[in-house]
Amino acid sequence: MKLRALGEDKLLARLLPMLHRRGGVVAGAGDDCAVVAAPKLGALQLLKTDCIVEGIHFTSASSPGSVGWKALARPLSDFAAMSGMPQFALVTLIVPAARTVDWIRKIYRGLEKAAREFDVAIVGGETSSIKGPAVISVSVTGFVEKGRWVGRGGGKANDELFVTGQLGGSLRGRHLKFRPRIEESRWLTKNFRVHAMMDLSDGLGADLPRLARASGVGFEVDQMALPLNRGCTAEQAISDGEDYELLFAISPKDSGSLPARWRKKFPKVPLTRIGRLNPQSAIRNPKLPPGYVHFKQR
Amino acid sequence: MKLRALGEDKLLARLLPMLHRRGGVVAGAGDDCAVVAAPKLGALQLLKTDCIVEGIHFTSASSPGSVGWKALARPLSDFAAMSGMPQFALVTLIVPAARTVDWIRKIYRGLEKAAREFDVAIVGGETSSIKGPAVISVSVTGFVEKGRWVGRGGGKANDELFVTGQLGGSLRGRHLKFRPRIEESRWLTKNFRVHAMMDLSDGLGADLPRLARASGVGFEVDQMALPLNRGCTAEQAISDGEDYELLFAISPKDSGSLPARWRKKFPKVPLTRIGRLNPQSAIRNPKLPPGYVHFKQR
Repeated sequence: MKLRALGEDKLLARLLPMLHRRGGVVAGAGDDCAVVAAPKLGALQLLKTDCIVEGIHFTSASSPGSVGWKALARPLSDFAAMSGMPQFALVTLIVPAARTVDWIRKIYRGLEKAAREFDVAIVGGETSSIKGPAVISVSVTGFVEKGRWVGRGGGKANDELFVTGQLGGSLRGRHLKFRPRIEESRWLTKNFRVHAMMDLSDGLGADLPRLARASGVGFEVDQMALPLNRGCTAEQAISDGEDYELLFAISPKDSGSLPARWRKKFPKVPLTRIGRLNPQSAIRNPKLPPGYVHFKQR
Repeated sequence: MKLRALGEDKLLARLLPMLHRRGGVVAGAGDDCAVVAAPKLGALQLLKTDCIVEGIHFTSASSPGSVGWKALARPLSDFAAMSGMPQFALVTLIVPAARTVDWIRKIYRGLEKAAREFDVAIVGGETSSIKGPAVISVSVTGFVEKGRWVGRGGGKANDELFVTGQLGGSLRGRHLKFRPRIEESRWLTKNFRVHAMMDLSDGLGADLPRLARASGVGFEVDQMALPLNRGCTAEQAISDGEDYELLFAISPKDSGSLPARWRKKFPKVPLTRIGRLNPQSAIRNPKLPPGYVHFKQR
């Protein structure tokens, strides 16, 4: 059945009963706003919005379940970057009226899978038609304890730089299936003083300079140390983007015990020291292509 | 200058300094998530997301300043519907790379005008390119005091139905310039017990049945009483949509003093009793066309 034959109310009536429930929801989808409990005392709110666009972040051949997973996993990765806990999500589906209801339902199934996995309640959303590519926009709110949130700006000269997982080649499929590093990030800030952190969405070559600039320091990266996905070159690890791994800076005083404790806690997720922050920028190979920059052509 | 020649970082660096500031922002645009203060004790959080799509909610000929205003004013109208106070907004701009930076800057100026007017801080956002029409997606968070929020589901048989302002003909221009009824809504819930409320976005003919259904009651509307915008018929007032006026239900015991007090407080905003809720649905003219239903053709 095509969307235009169904109407928004009926579409939502079919999708909403599938949604994961969690505490704190006073009024979910179906009213003008969602009404949810405020974060508990001593916590700050985190807000994030993100979107994926057909023809840019996925193709019409991508499995709709994976597309839905990615649409929610991307903002959750930003929660990992701040060491926050996501709680509630709002979903806006902007799709051509000729798209089938079945496609939408599969998108929602993917969204719901990610929501369930990370205990996020989808508490509202919108639908709209478009004469063009589909867009899925997702906003997430949650909390982080005061004193525990990690921004990009706290890095100091001599801090060691680590990345989780492996980099490069994400467009071969991992960009639709990655797992936000929320558990890893929460463990890090529970056990270590992380100075600065972000998730790698545009590629190390674009993202690391942002972290360094926000911290007012330079950096050097040992290209030979970069953890590469199978079949990837260092250039790809720097430029491909969509890794959704954590990049963080930690004092060398604290970093000694980190690798061994990490291996014990997360035996399947590599953690690699890739370089350090320093007073002056000194990227070793200045001819490396930059990471993917939106709107900029290579 | 075209967007593709500038890049996202530089675009944001140009736009962010214009943004209205307000209390409660710990970390705004520029980090992975926005970090904001939690609502004060005794308050609930309100979350809303909405989008406007070129070719659907505005045209390429629409003034970009008005488009920006509308993009934020729409979710703020949902805050009015719940009698909530908006605080923070996230903005996602999805635009073709060939669009000019000047166009984006004007969109942001319109967003910012609405943000300043209603004391909302734009604390983050995303940009993405698209091979198709522009989309502006806006999420807003805020609060409402416990016991003061008004949903759609509290209406009771015999409640009187009121609408603010005048209805119909919005597409002639008002849909880009309307003022969310937040002040009016806050005054109403401070002074009266409002049973159910919503904002009229899809037209009275589509929205009133939603309120009635959520409340488990029927309704009757006196077509002759409908407050019409200049040159509009009752049919247009019922079907055009995008009025962004408040529709609310209030006990006849409480409604007696309402019109006089309203006129004194809001002399320029009409308030009209248009009908009532009742145990059974009894719309007087069953042949009326329904309000605009997304995805559904007339």
